[in-house]
Amino acid sequence: MTSTPAIEVVALDADDTLWHSEVYFERTQRRFKELVGRYVDADFDVDAALVEVEHRNLGAYGYGIKGFTLSMIEAAIEATDGAIGVDEIGQILASGRTMLDHPVDLLPGVDQAVTDLTDAGYRLLIVTKGDLHHQEHKILASGIADRFERLEIVAEKDPATYRRVIASMGVEPGAFCMVGNSVRSDVLPVLELGAHAVHIPYHVTWAHEHVEHDGTVPTLTSIAELPAWLAEAAAAR
Amino acid sequence: MTSTPAIEVVALDADDTLWHSEVYFERTQRRFKELVGRYVDADFDVDAALVEVEHRNLGAYGYGIKGFTLSMIEAAIEATDGAIGVDEIGQILASGRTMLDHPVDLLPGVDQAVTDLTDAGYRLLIVTKGDLHHQEHKILASGIADRFERLEIVAEKDPATYRRVIASMGVEPGAFCMVGNSVRSDVLPVLELGAHAVHIPYHVTWAHEHVEHDGTVPTLTSIAELPAWLAEAAAAR
Repeated sequence: MTSTPAIEVVALDADDTLWHSEVYFERTQRRFKELVGRYVDADFDVDAALVEVEHRNLGAYGYGIKGFTLSMIEAAIEATDGAIGVDEIGQILASGRTMLDHPVDLLPGVDQAVTDLTDAGYRLLIVTKGDLHHQEHKILASGIADRFERLEIVAEKDPATYRRVIASMGVEPGAFCMVGNSVRSDVLPVLELGAHAVHIPYHVTWAHEHVEHDGTVPTLTSIAELPAWLAEAAAAR
Repeated sequence: MTSTPAIEVVALDADDTLWHSEVYFERTQRRFKELVGRYVDADFDVDAALVEVEHRNLGAYGYGIKGFTLSMIEAAIEATDGAIGVDEIGQILASGRTMLDHPVDLLPGVDQAVTDLTDAGYRLLIVTKGDLHHQEHKILASGIADRFERLEIVAEKDPATYRRVIASMGVEPGAFCMVGNSVRSDVLPVLELGAHAVHIPYHVTWAHEHVEHDGTVPTLTSIAELPAWLAEAAAAR
C-alpha cells in the first residue's frame, strides 16, 4: 500500500496516436519535391530547403496544414529564385487542400482501446497541437468523439500547458497519464510535472519532434497494449 | 426585487472589440486588388472574386490570416487564369505574413475599461474565433492578458459553444454577458440562451459577419461606456 494516486485521467495525443497524419505530410512533401525538383540542380536538397522555411515560420504560423502549405509555396519560390511556374504553385496549394480534406484514418486498435479504457472507467481527453478548426473537424469525423470528456487543442505542449490541463480536470498530476507518439511533446514535459506518460512511437516522426532521451520512458508498440499497461500500473501501486 | 441573477462574468470578443483587426484585412485586400488588377479587365470585380473563394474555403480553412492568405493566392491564380506572376504570388504571401507580424493595437478605451471592470469585481474572459496560435500570440502581446481569467478560442460562435463556455465558468446564462462587434457571432446566439449581450460596432464589418436584426440589441458606441452600462443593468435588477 502506498499513497500514490490511481490514474483517473488518460489524455491522448491525436495526430499519429489516434489517426494517421505525418504520412500525409510525407506524401505531400514527395510531390512538392517532384514539382520543385524540375527547376533546381540535381544536387539541390529540396527537403532541407522546405524544413528551413518551415522552422523559420513556426513562430508566426504555428502547427498545422495551412502553415505548412504557405511554407511550401514560400520555399518553392525561394528555392527556384522565382523560376517555378504559377501552375506548380497552384498544384502545391491544391496538395495542401487535399490533406485538409482527407478522411480521418484511425490507427489500428484505436477504436477497441478507447472502448476498453472507457469501460474500465478512465476519464479520457484529447490533448493536441495543430490547427483548431482542422483538429475539431477531425475529432468530429473520427467516430470516437463520444468517448472523450473533452478536446484540448493547445498552441504548445510544454509543462505550463500540461499543468493547466491537469488542473482543469480537477486531479493531481499523479492521477494523470498522457499517451502519444512524441517523446518531446507528449512525454518529457508531462513526466517533469510528476504525471505519468506513455510513448507509442509512430513509424514516421516530424523532424521538429525529434529529441534525445535516456530510454527509460514507458514505451508501447501499439495503443492496443495501453489498457493492459494501465491495469498493471494500477496493480503495482 | 426580482430573481434575475446579477452579471458576474463579462466575456469579450477580441478582434475589432479589444484590438484592430479588420482594418488590416482591408489594407491587405487593397494591395491584393492592385496586384491582381494588372492582369484582369478593368470591369472585373477582384473583391467579389476573393470573397467567393474565401467563402468556398471557409469550411476547410476556418477563420484567420493563414486561410485568408491561401484564399488570396488561389483567387489570384483563378481570376487571372494563371497569368499572374510568381513575383506577385510572393508579394501576396508576404502581405499575409505582414498581417501576422503586425503589433497588437488596442482600440481606444480598452485598457481603462478592462481595468474598471476588473476593479468592479467582474470575472473577465475572452471568447474569440480565429487561429489558435495567432490569437494566443496577440493576447500575450496585448499587455492586458493578466486581467482575463481565461482565453477561449473557439471554432464557431454558436449557441452550443456559448452554452459550453457559460457552463465552464460555473454560472447561469443570466449571470453572463458577451460583448463584441458582431451581432451575428457575439450577440444573437448569446441572447438565444437567455444570457446578456452588448453590441459595440467597429467601423468595418467583414462581409461574412453581416446579419439583419430587429434593432433592439443593446448597442454602445465605445467599450468606454461598458462599465457604466453594466452598473445600470445591476441597478435596474
